Amino acid sequence: MRRVRLIVAYDGTNYCGWQIQPNGITIEEVLNREISRLTGENIHIIGASRTDSGVHALGNVAVFDTASSIPPERMAYALNQRMPKDIVIVRSDETLPDWHPRYQDKITKTYEYHIYNAPAPNPLKRNYSAFVSFPMDTEKMRKGAEYLVGEHDFVSFCNIRTNVSDTVRTVHSITIIQNGPDIVLRITGNGFLYHMVRIIAGTLIRVGRGFYAPEKVKEILEEKKRTAAGVTAPAAGLVLVGIDY
Amino acid sequence: MRRVRLIVAYDGTNYCGWQIQPNGITIEEVLNREISRLTGENIHIIGASRTDSGVHALGNVAVFDTASSIPPERMAYALNQRMPKDIVIVRSDETLPDWHPRYQDKITKTYEYHIYNAPAPNPLKRNYSAFVSFPMDTEKMRKGAEYLVGEHDFVSFCNIRTNVSDTVRTVHSITIIQNGPDIVLRITGNGFLYHMVRIIAGTLIRVGRGFYAPEKVKEILEEKKRTAAGVTAPAAGLVLVGIDY
Repeated sequence: MRRVRLIVAYDGTNYCGWQIQPNGITIEEVLNREISRLTGENIHIIGASRTDSGVHALGNVAVFDTASSIPPERMAYALNQRMPKDIVIVRSDETLPDWHPRYQDKITKTYEYHIYNAPAPNPLKRNYSAFVSFPMDTEKMRKGAEYLVGEHDFVSFCNIRTNVSDTVRTVHSITIIQNGPDIVLRITGNGFLYHMVRIIAGTLIRVGRGFYAPEKVKEILEEKKRTAAGVTAPAAGLVLVGIDY
Repeated sequence: MRRVRLIVAYDGTNYCGWQIQPNGITIEEVLNREISRLTGENIHIIGASRTDSGVHALGNVAVFDTASSIPPERMAYALNQRMPKDIVIVRSDETLPDWHPRYQDKITKTYEYHIYNAPAPNPLKRNYSAFVSFPMDTEKMRKGAEYLVGEHDFVSFCNIRTNVSDTVRTVHSITIIQNGPDIVLRITGNGFLYHMVRIIAGTLIRVGRGFYAPEKVKEILEEKKRTAAGVTAPAAGLVLVGIDY
Protein backbone atom coordinates (compact mmCIF):
# COMPACT_ATOMS: atom_id res chain seq x y z
CA MET A 1 0.00 0.00 0.00
CA ARG A 2 1.16 3.51 -0.65
CA ARG A 3 -0.36 6.95 -0.10
CA VAL A 4 -1.02 9.03 -3.22
CA ARG A 5 -1.50 12.79 -3.02
CA LEU A 6 -3.65 14.66 -5.53
CA ILE A 7 -3.80 18.37 -6.35
CA VAL A 8 -7.41 18.88 -7.44
CA ALA A 9 -8.98 21.75 -9.43
CA TYR A 10 -12.72 22.05 -9.94
CA ASP A 11 -15.54 24.27 -11.07
CA GLY A 12 -17.87 24.08 -8.06
CA THR A 13 -20.90 25.48 -9.92
CA ASN A 14 -22.66 22.17 -10.37
CA TYR A 15 -21.61 20.49 -7.10
CA CYS A 16 -22.95 20.57 -3.54
CA GLY A 17 -19.44 21.29 -2.28
CA TRP A 18 -16.60 18.92 -1.45
CA GLN A 19 -17.95 16.70 1.30
CA ILE A 20 -20.21 13.72 0.65
CA GLN A 21 -23.83 14.37 1.59
CA PRO A 22 -27.13 12.64 0.93
CA ASN A 23 -28.87 15.33 -1.12
CA GLY A 24 -26.58 16.08 -4.03
CA ILE A 25 -23.46 15.22 -5.94
CA THR A 26 -20.15 16.34 -4.41
CA ILE A 27 -16.50 16.51 -5.49
CA GLU A 28 -15.45 13.91 -2.88
CA GLU A 29 -18.09 11.47 -4.15
CA VAL A 30 -16.97 11.77 -7.79
CA LEU A 31 -13.31 11.33 -6.79
CA ASN A 32 -14.07 8.26 -4.63
CA ARG A 33 -16.12 6.73 -7.45
CA GLU A 34 -13.59 7.33 -10.24
CA ILE A 35 -10.50 6.37 -8.22
CA SER A 36 -12.28 3.20 -7.06
CA ARG A 37 -13.19 2.32 -10.66
CA LEU A 38 -9.62 2.95 -11.81
CA THR A 39 -7.89 0.88 -9.12
CA GLY A 40 -10.61 -1.70 -8.46
CA GLU A 41 -10.45 -0.89 -4.75
CA ASN A 42 -12.93 0.75 -2.41
CA ILE A 43 -11.33 4.18 -2.06
CA HIS A 44 -12.21 6.88 0.48
CA ILE A 45 -10.11 9.98 -0.05
CA ILE A 46 -9.12 12.40 2.72
CA GLY A 47 -9.43 16.03 1.62
CA ALA A 48 -7.65 19.13 2.91
CA SER A 49 -10.47 21.62 2.57
CA ARG A 50 -14.24 21.02 2.55
CA THR A 51 -15.26 23.78 0.17
CA ASP A 52 -18.91 24.86 0.09
CA SER A 53 -21.47 24.42 -2.66
CA GLY A 54 -20.58 26.63 -5.65
CA VAL A 55 -17.04 27.36 -4.40
CA HIS A 56 -14.18 26.60 -6.81
CA ALA A 57 -10.63 25.30 -6.38
CA LEU A 58 -7.43 25.39 -8.36
CA GLY A 59 -5.38 23.53 -5.75
CA ASN A 60 -7.32 21.56 -3.17
CA VAL A 61 -5.36 18.58 -1.81
CA ALA A 62 -6.47 14.99 -1.15
CA VAL A 63 -4.81 11.67 -0.37
CA PHE A 64 -5.78 7.99 -0.65
CA ASP A 65 -4.13 4.64 -0.01
CA THR A 66 -3.83 2.12 -2.80
CA ALA A 67 -2.13 -1.11 -3.79
CA SER A 68 -2.52 -0.20 -7.48
CA SER A 69 0.46 -0.72 -9.76
CA ILE A 70 -0.22 2.58 -11.57
CA PRO A 71 2.75 4.87 -10.81
CA PRO A 72 1.57 7.65 -8.45
CA GLU A 73 2.77 10.36 -10.87
CA ARG A 74 0.60 8.80 -13.64
CA MET A 75 -2.56 8.75 -11.52
CA ALA A 76 -3.42 12.34 -12.56
CA TYR A 77 -3.34 11.47 -16.24
CA ALA A 78 -5.22 8.19 -15.80
CA LEU A 79 -7.94 9.83 -13.69
CA ASN A 80 -8.40 12.82 -16.00
CA GLN A 81 -9.47 10.43 -18.78
CA ARG A 82 -12.50 9.42 -16.67
CA MET A 83 -13.28 12.56 -14.73
CA PRO A 84 -16.08 14.96 -15.75
CA LYS A 85 -14.62 18.08 -17.42
CA ASP A 86 -15.30 20.26 -14.39
CA ILE A 87 -12.91 18.29 -12.13
CA VAL A 88 -9.21 18.05 -13.05
CA ILE A 89 -6.35 16.34 -11.23
CA VAL A 90 -3.58 18.90 -11.72
CA ARG A 91 -0.82 16.69 -10.31
CA SER A 92 -0.32 13.43 -8.39
CA ASP A 93 2.60 12.04 -6.43
CA GLU A 94 3.47 9.60 -3.66
CA THR A 95 3.61 10.90 -0.10
CA LEU A 96 4.47 9.39 3.29
CA PRO A 97 2.02 6.73 4.56
CA ASP A 98 0.99 8.88 7.54
CA TRP A 99 0.93 12.26 5.76
CA HIS A 100 -2.45 13.93 6.40
CA PRO A 101 -3.60 16.95 4.35
CA ARG A 102 -5.36 18.65 7.30
CA TYR A 103 -3.03 17.92 10.25
CA GLN A 104 0.38 19.40 9.61
CA ASP A 105 2.53 21.75 11.70
CA LYS A 106 2.60 24.39 9.04
CA ILE A 107 -0.22 25.01 6.57
CA THR A 108 -0.71 28.13 4.44
CA LYS A 109 -3.91 28.47 2.45
CA THR A 110 -4.50 30.99 -0.31
CA TYR A 111 -7.96 32.03 -1.45
CA GLU A 112 -9.11 34.52 -4.06
CA TYR A 113 -12.44 36.32 -3.97
CA HIS A 114 -13.49 37.71 -7.37
CA ILE A 115 -15.76 40.72 -7.84
CA TYR A 116 -17.09 41.99 -11.17
CA ASN A 117 -17.72 45.72 -10.76
CA ALA A 118 -19.54 47.35 -13.69
CA PRO A 119 -22.95 48.85 -14.48
CA ALA A 120 -24.19 45.55 -16.03
CA PRO A 121 -23.24 41.96 -15.15
CA ASN A 122 -20.86 39.94 -17.34
CA PRO A 123 -22.51 36.63 -18.29
CA LEU A 124 -19.08 34.98 -18.75
CA LYS A 125 -18.29 35.66 -15.09
CA ARG A 126 -21.68 34.91 -13.54
CA ASN A 127 -20.47 31.65 -11.93
CA TYR A 128 -17.01 32.96 -10.99
CA SER A 129 -17.57 36.32 -9.32
CA ALA A 130 -19.86 38.47 -7.22
CA PHE A 131 -21.47 41.23 -9.30
CA VAL A 132 -21.41 44.72 -7.77
CA SER A 133 -22.97 47.57 -9.78
CA PHE A 134 -22.14 50.39 -7.31
CA PRO A 135 -18.81 52.17 -7.87
CA MET A 136 -16.11 50.72 -5.60
CA ASP A 137 -13.13 52.46 -4.00
CA THR A 138 -10.36 49.82 -3.82
CA GLU A 139 -8.07 52.18 -1.89
CA LYS A 140 -10.59 52.20 0.95
CA MET A 141 -10.88 48.41 0.70
CA ARG A 142 -7.09 48.12 1.10
CA LYS A 143 -7.22 50.33 4.21
CA GLY A 144 -10.01 48.23 5.70
CA ALA A 145 -8.18 44.99 4.86
CA GLU A 146 -5.06 46.08 6.76
CA TYR A 147 -6.90 45.67 10.08
CA LEU A 148 -7.39 41.96 9.34
CA VAL A 149 -3.74 41.12 8.73
CA GLY A 150 -2.05 39.40 11.67
CA GLU A 151 -3.25 37.10 14.46
CA HIS A 152 -6.79 37.91 15.57
CA ASP A 153 -9.88 36.31 17.02
CA PHE A 154 -11.99 36.17 13.83
CA VAL A 155 -15.23 35.12 15.56
CA SER A 156 -17.01 38.14 13.99
CA PHE A 157 -16.07 36.69 10.58
CA CYS A 158 -17.27 33.14 11.29
CA ASN A 159 -20.64 31.62 10.47
CA ILE A 160 -22.42 30.77 13.75
CA ARG A 161 -22.99 27.18 12.55
CA THR A 162 -19.40 26.20 13.30
CA ASN A 163 -18.07 23.49 15.57
CA VAL A 164 -14.66 24.98 16.28
CA SER A 165 -14.00 26.52 19.70
CA ASP A 166 -10.74 28.31 18.91
CA THR A 167 -11.54 31.15 16.52
CA VAL A 168 -8.07 32.70 16.51
CA ARG A 169 -6.40 32.63 13.08
CA THR A 170 -3.49 34.40 11.41
CA VAL A 171 -4.00 36.23 8.11
CA HIS A 172 -0.60 36.65 6.45
CA SER A 173 -1.70 39.04 3.71
CA ILE A 174 -4.66 40.49 1.84
CA THR A 175 -3.89 41.92 -1.59
CA ILE A 176 -6.51 43.74 -3.63
CA ILE A 177 -5.87 43.75 -7.38
CA GLN A 178 -8.00 45.83 -9.74
CA ASN A 179 -7.94 45.30 -13.49
CA GLY A 180 -10.70 47.30 -15.15
CA PRO A 181 -14.02 45.91 -13.86
CA ASP A 182 -12.32 42.92 -12.21
CA ILE A 183 -11.42 43.20 -8.53
CA VAL A 184 -9.66 40.27 -6.85
CA LEU A 185 -9.08 39.94 -3.09
CA ARG A 186 -6.21 37.53 -2.55
CA ILE A 187 -5.94 36.34 1.03
CA THR A 188 -3.36 34.07 2.61
CA GLY A 189 -3.42 32.64 6.13
CA ASN A 190 -2.76 29.66 8.36
CA GLY A 191 -6.41 28.61 8.30
CA PHE A 192 -9.87 30.03 7.79
CA LEU A 193 -13.07 29.66 9.79
CA TYR A 194 -16.39 28.60 8.28
CA HIS A 195 -17.38 31.28 5.68
CA MET A 196 -14.53 33.51 6.90
CA VAL A 197 -13.27 34.57 3.45
CA ARG A 198 -16.81 35.21 2.17
CA ILE A 199 -17.70 37.32 5.25
CA ILE A 200 -14.44 39.27 4.85
CA ALA A 201 -15.32 39.79 1.16
CA GLY A 202 -18.87 40.88 2.04
CA THR A 203 -17.51 43.34 4.61
CA LEU A 204 -14.84 44.77 2.30
CA ILE A 205 -17.43 45.16 -0.48
CA ARG A 206 -19.40 47.38 1.95
CA VAL A 207 -16.20 49.35 2.61
CA GLY A 208 -15.57 49.69 -1.14
CA ARG A 209 -19.10 51.01 -1.69
CA GLY A 210 -18.64 53.59 1.07
CA PHE A 211 -21.33 51.96 3.22
CA TYR A 212 -18.71 51.24 5.94
CA ALA A 213 -15.66 53.41 6.74
CA PRO A 214 -12.40 51.42 6.57
CA GLU A 215 -12.07 51.80 10.38
CA LYS A 216 -15.34 49.91 10.79
CA VAL A 217 -13.40 46.70 10.04
CA LYS A 218 -11.37 47.21 13.22
CA GLU A 219 -14.57 47.75 15.25
CA ILE A 220 -16.11 44.58 13.80
CA LEU A 221 -13.04 42.55 14.83
CA GLU A 222 -13.20 44.02 18.35
CA GLU A 223 -16.92 43.45 18.78
CA LYS A 224 -16.36 39.69 18.52
CA LYS A 225 -19.78 38.75 17.27
CA ARG A 226 -20.94 37.63 13.85
CA THR A 227 -23.78 40.16 13.59
CA ALA A 228 -21.22 42.97 13.64
CA ALA A 229 -19.79 42.14 10.18
CA GLY A 230 -21.17 42.46 6.65
CA VAL A 231 -23.16 39.83 4.79
CA THR A 232 -21.59 36.64 3.47
CA ALA A 233 -20.57 37.27 -0.16
CA PRO A 234 -21.82 34.71 -2.75
CA ALA A 235 -20.03 31.35 -3.05
CA ALA A 236 -19.47 31.80 -6.80
CA GLY A 237 -16.75 34.43 -6.26
CA LEU A 238 -14.55 32.19 -4.07
CA VAL A 239 -11.60 30.09 -5.28
CA LEU A 240 -9.28 27.99 -3.11
CA VAL A 241 -6.09 28.78 -5.02
CA GLY A 242 -3.71 26.49 -3.19
CA ILE A 243 -2.38 25.01 0.04
CA ASP A 244 1.30 25.10 1.02
CA TYR A 245 2.76 22.76 3.63
CA MET B 1 -42.46 53.32 -34.03
CA ARG B 2 -38.86 53.77 -33.07
CA ARG B 3 -35.69 51.74 -33.51
CA VAL B 4 -34.01 50.51 -30.32
CA ARG B 5 -30.38 49.40 -30.31
CA LEU B 6 -29.10 46.78 -27.85
CA ILE B 7 -25.56 45.94 -26.79
CA VAL B 8 -25.76 42.23 -25.95
CA ALA B 9 -23.37 40.06 -23.90
CA TYR B 10 -23.76 36.29 -23.66
CA ASP B 11 -22.14 33.07 -22.61
CA GLY B 12 -22.49 31.02 -25.79
CA THR B 13 -21.78 27.65 -24.08
CA ASN B 14 -25.38 26.48 -24.00
CA TYR B 15 -26.57 28.02 -27.28
CA CYS B 16 -26.44 26.93 -30.92
CA GLY B 17 -25.04 30.32 -31.86
CA TRP B 18 -26.82 33.57 -32.62
CA GLN B 19 -28.99 32.83 -35.63
CA ILE B 20 -32.37 31.09 -35.37
CA GLN B 21 -32.26 27.49 -36.54
CA PRO B 22 -34.60 24.50 -36.26
CA ASN B 23 -32.40 22.18 -34.16
CA GLY B 24 -31.52 24.12 -31.04
CA ILE B 25 -31.97 27.21 -28.95
CA THR B 26 -30.19 30.37 -30.14
CA ILE B 27 -29.49 33.84 -28.76
CA GLU B 28 -31.64 35.50 -31.45
CA GLU B 29 -34.58 33.25 -30.57
CA VAL B 30 -34.41 34.07 -26.84
CA LEU B 31 -34.12 37.81 -27.58
CA ASN B 32 -37.10 37.74 -30.00
CA ARG B 33 -39.18 35.82 -27.46
CA GLU B 34 -38.37 38.01 -24.44
CA ILE B 35 -38.64 41.35 -26.27
CA SER B 36 -41.97 40.24 -27.79
CA ARG B 37 -43.28 39.27 -24.33
CA LEU B 38 -42.12 42.59 -22.87
CA THR B 39 -43.63 44.83 -25.56
CA GLY B 40 -46.61 42.66 -26.59
CA GLU B 41 -45.49 42.93 -30.21
CA ASN B 42 -44.11 40.33 -32.63
CA ILE B 43 -40.44 41.32 -32.62
CA HIS B 44 -37.74 40.15 -35.03
CA ILE B 45 -34.38 41.62 -34.13
CA ILE B 46 -31.60 42.37 -36.63
CA GLY B 47 -28.19 41.34 -35.31
CA ALA B 48 -24.73 42.62 -36.27
CA SER B 49 -22.80 39.38 -35.96
CA ARG B 50 -24.01 35.78 -36.28
CA THR B 51 -21.67 34.14 -33.81
CA ASP B 52 -21.26 30.35 -33.93
CA SER B 53 -22.35 27.76 -31.41
CA GLY B 54 -20.24 28.04 -28.23
CA VAL B 55 -18.84 31.48 -29.15
CA HIS B 56 -19.29 34.26 -26.59
CA ALA B 57 -19.94 38.00 -26.83
CA LEU B 58 -19.46 41.00 -24.60
CA GLY B 59 -20.72 43.49 -27.16
CA ASN B 60 -22.78 42.13 -30.02
CA VAL B 61 -25.26 44.67 -31.41
CA ALA B 62 -28.92 44.26 -32.39
CA VAL B 63 -31.84 46.52 -33.28
CA PHE B 64 -35.62 46.20 -33.32
CA ASP B 65 -38.59 48.45 -34.05
CA THR B 66 -41.24 49.01 -31.42
CA ALA B 67 -44.21 51.19 -30.52
CA SER B 68 -43.69 50.40 -26.83
CA SER B 69 -43.85 53.27 -24.35
CA ILE B 70 -40.87 51.90 -22.39
CA PRO B 71 -38.06 54.47 -22.79
CA PRO B 72 -35.32 52.95 -25.03
CA GLU B 73 -32.68 53.51 -22.33
CA ARG B 74 -34.79 51.49 -19.86
CA MET B 75 -35.20 48.52 -22.21
CA ALA B 76 -31.91 46.96 -21.00
CA TYR B 77 -33.05 46.97 -17.39
CA ALA B 78 -36.57 45.71 -18.19
CA LEU B 79 -35.23 42.89 -20.40
CA ASN B 80 -32.56 41.77 -17.93
CA GLN B 81 -35.32 40.96 -15.41
CA ARG B 82 -36.65 38.30 -17.80
CA MET B 83 -33.54 37.10 -19.58
CA PRO B 84 -31.74 33.86 -18.63
CA LYS B 85 -28.56 34.64 -16.64
CA ASP B 86 -26.29 33.78 -19.58
CA ILE B 87 -27.65 36.63 -21.75
CA VAL B 88 -27.33 40.25 -20.56
CA ILE B 89 -28.37 43.48 -22.27
CA VAL B 90 -25.43 45.72 -21.40
CA ARG B 91 -27.02 48.91 -22.74
CA SER B 92 -29.97 50.09 -24.82
CA ASP B 93 -30.69 53.34 -26.64
CA GLU B 94 -32.72 54.80 -29.49
CA THR B 95 -31.13 54.96 -32.93
CA LEU B 96 -32.19 56.30 -36.34
CA PRO B 97 -35.13 54.43 -37.97
CA ASP B 98 -32.94 53.24 -40.87
CA TRP B 99 -29.77 52.46 -38.88
CA HIS B 100 -28.66 48.89 -39.67
CA PRO B 101 -26.07 47.07 -37.53
CA ARG B 102 -24.46 45.23 -40.49
CA TYR B 103 -24.55 47.84 -43.28
CA GLN B 104 -22.55 50.90 -42.27
CA ASP B 105 -19.71 52.75 -43.99
CA LYS B 106 -17.32 52.17 -41.18
CA ILE B 107 -17.39 49.11 -38.91
CA THR B 108 -14.58 47.95 -36.63
CA LYS B 109 -14.94 44.61 -34.88
CA THR B 110 -12.80 43.41 -31.99
CA TYR B 111 -12.47 39.75 -31.08
CA GLU B 112 -10.43 38.02 -28.40
CA TYR B 113 -9.24 34.44 -28.62
CA HIS B 114 -8.32 32.94 -25.22
CA ILE B 115 -5.77 30.15 -24.75
CA TYR B 116 -5.03 28.40 -21.46
CA ASN B 117 -1.44 27.15 -21.64
CA ALA B 118 -0.38 24.90 -18.77
CA PRO B 119 0.45 21.22 -18.15
CA ALA B 120 -3.12 20.49 -16.93
CA PRO B 121 -6.41 22.12 -17.98
CA ASN B 122 -8.16 24.67 -15.75
CA PRO B 123 -11.77 23.57 -15.16
CA LEU B 124 -12.84 27.19 -14.53
CA LYS B 125 -11.77 28.10 -18.07
CA ARG B 126 -12.94 25.01 -19.92
CA ASN B 127 -15.82 26.85 -21.64
CA TYR B 128 -13.86 30.07 -22.22
CA SER B 129 -10.52 29.05 -23.70
CA ALA B 130 -8.64 26.55 -25.82
CA PHE B 131 -6.39 24.36 -23.70
CA VAL B 132 -2.81 23.90 -24.97
CA SER B 133 -0.45 21.73 -22.90
CA PHE B 134 2.67 22.20 -25.09
CA PRO B 135 4.95 25.12 -24.15
CA MET B 136 4.17 28.19 -26.29
CA ASP B 137 6.50 30.93 -27.53
CA THR B 138 4.40 34.09 -27.68
CA GLU B 139 7.27 36.06 -29.27
CA LYS B 140 7.07 33.76 -32.30
CA MET B 141 3.28 34.13 -32.33
CA ARG B 142 3.69 37.93 -32.45
CA LYS B 143 6.07 37.63 -35.40
CA GLY B 144 3.65 35.34 -37.24
CA ALA B 145 0.71 37.65 -36.48
CA GLU B 146 2.48 40.64 -38.06
CA TYR B 147 2.03 39.13 -41.54
CA LEU B 148 -1.75 39.23 -41.08
CA VAL B 149 -2.01 42.93 -40.26
CA GLY B 150 -3.16 45.09 -43.17
CA GLU B 151 -5.40 44.50 -46.20
CA HIS B 152 -5.13 40.95 -47.50
CA ASP B 153 -7.11 38.29 -49.30
CA PHE B 154 -7.87 36.04 -46.30
CA VAL B 155 -9.31 33.15 -48.36
CA SER B 156 -6.77 30.76 -46.72
CA PHE B 157 -8.32 31.74 -43.38
CA CYS B 158 -11.96 31.22 -44.41
CA ASN B 159 -14.10 28.12 -43.94
CA ILE B 160 -14.97 26.75 -47.40
CA ARG B 161 -18.68 26.74 -46.50
CA THR B 162 -18.98 30.49 -47.03
CA ASN B 163 -21.22 32.42 -49.36
CA VAL B 164 -19.12 35.56 -49.71
CA SER B 165 -17.23 36.17 -52.95
CA ASP B 166 -14.97 39.01 -51.79
CA THR B 167 -12.51 37.54 -49.29
CA VAL B 168 -10.38 40.68 -48.91
CA ARG B 169 -10.44 42.11 -45.38
CA THR B 170 -8.34 44.55 -43.36
CA VAL B 171 -6.91 43.52 -40.00
CA HIS B 172 -6.04 46.68 -38.05
CA SER B 173 -4.10 45.00 -35.24
CA ILE B 174 -3.34 41.71 -33.52
CA THR B 175 -2.08 42.00 -29.94
CA ILE B 176 -0.89 38.97 -27.99
CA ILE B 177 -1.08 39.36 -24.22
CA GLN B 178 0.40 36.75 -21.89
CA ASN B 179 -0.40 36.67 -18.20
CA GLY B 180 0.96 33.50 -16.63
CA PRO B 181 -0.86 30.56 -18.26
CA ASP B 182 -3.38 32.86 -19.97
CA ILE B 183 -2.67 33.94 -23.54
CA VAL B 184 -5.10 36.29 -25.27
CA LEU B 185 -5.03 37.16 -28.99
CA ARG B 186 -6.86 40.44 -29.46
CA ILE B 187 -7.70 41.13 -33.09
CA THR B 188 -9.35 44.17 -34.62
CA GLY B 189 -10.49 44.58 -38.21
CA ASN B 190 -13.11 45.92 -40.60
CA GLY B 191 -14.79 42.51 -40.85
CA PHE B 192 -14.02 38.82 -40.53
CA LEU B 193 -14.77 35.87 -42.81
CA TYR B 194 -16.50 32.69 -41.65
CA HIS B 195 -14.25 31.07 -38.95
CA MET B 196 -11.47 33.57 -39.79
CA VAL B 197 -10.49 34.40 -36.20
CA ARG B 198 -10.58 30.73 -35.15
CA ILE B 199 -8.40 29.68 -38.14
CA ILE B 200 -5.95 32.52 -37.35
CA ALA B 201 -5.90 31.32 -33.71
CA GLY B 202 -5.36 27.69 -34.78
CA THR B 203 -2.51 28.76 -37.08
CA LEU B 204 -0.83 30.99 -34.47
CA ILE B 205 -1.11 28.19 -31.87
CA ARG B 206 0.92 26.04 -34.30
CA VAL B 207 3.46 28.86 -34.57
CA GLY B 208 3.61 29.18 -30.77
CA ARG B 209 4.25 25.44 -30.40
CA GLY B 210 7.09 25.62 -32.96
CA PHE B 211 5.19 23.41 -35.41
CA TYR B 212 5.14 26.28 -37.96
CA ALA B 213 7.86 28.93 -38.38
CA PRO B 214 6.46 32.50 -38.07
CA GLU B 215 7.18 33.00 -41.82
CA LYS B 216 4.80 30.13 -42.62
CA VAL B 217 1.92 32.57 -41.93
CA LYS B 218 3.03 34.67 -44.92
CA GLU B 219 3.16 31.56 -47.13
CA ILE B 220 -0.32 30.51 -46.04
CA LEU B 221 -1.71 33.95 -46.95
CA GLU B 222 -0.02 33.76 -50.36
CA GLU B 223 -1.19 30.22 -51.11
CA LYS B 224 -4.80 31.44 -51.09
CA LYS B 225 -6.41 28.16 -50.17
CA ARG B 226 -7.99 26.99 -46.93
CA THR B 227 -6.00 23.75 -46.73
CA ALA B 228 -2.80 25.77 -46.36
CA ALA B 229 -3.65 27.09 -42.88
CA GLY B 230 -3.84 25.46 -39.44
CA VAL B 231 -6.93 23.86 -37.92
CA THR B 232 -9.89 25.88 -36.70
CA ALA B 233 -9.37 26.52 -32.97
CA PRO B 234 -12.31 25.59 -30.66
CA ALA B 235 -15.33 27.91 -30.45
CA ALA B 236 -15.09 28.15 -26.65
CA GLY B 237 -12.00 30.40 -26.81
CA LEU B 238 -13.65 33.08 -28.95
CA VAL B 239 -15.31 36.27 -27.67
CA LEU B 240 -16.79 39.05 -29.77
CA VAL B 241 -15.62 41.94 -27.59
CA GLY B 242 -17.32 44.79 -29.38
CA ILE B 243 -18.29 46.57 -32.58
CA ASP B 244 -17.48 50.22 -33.25
CA TYR B 245 -19.31 52.24 -35.91
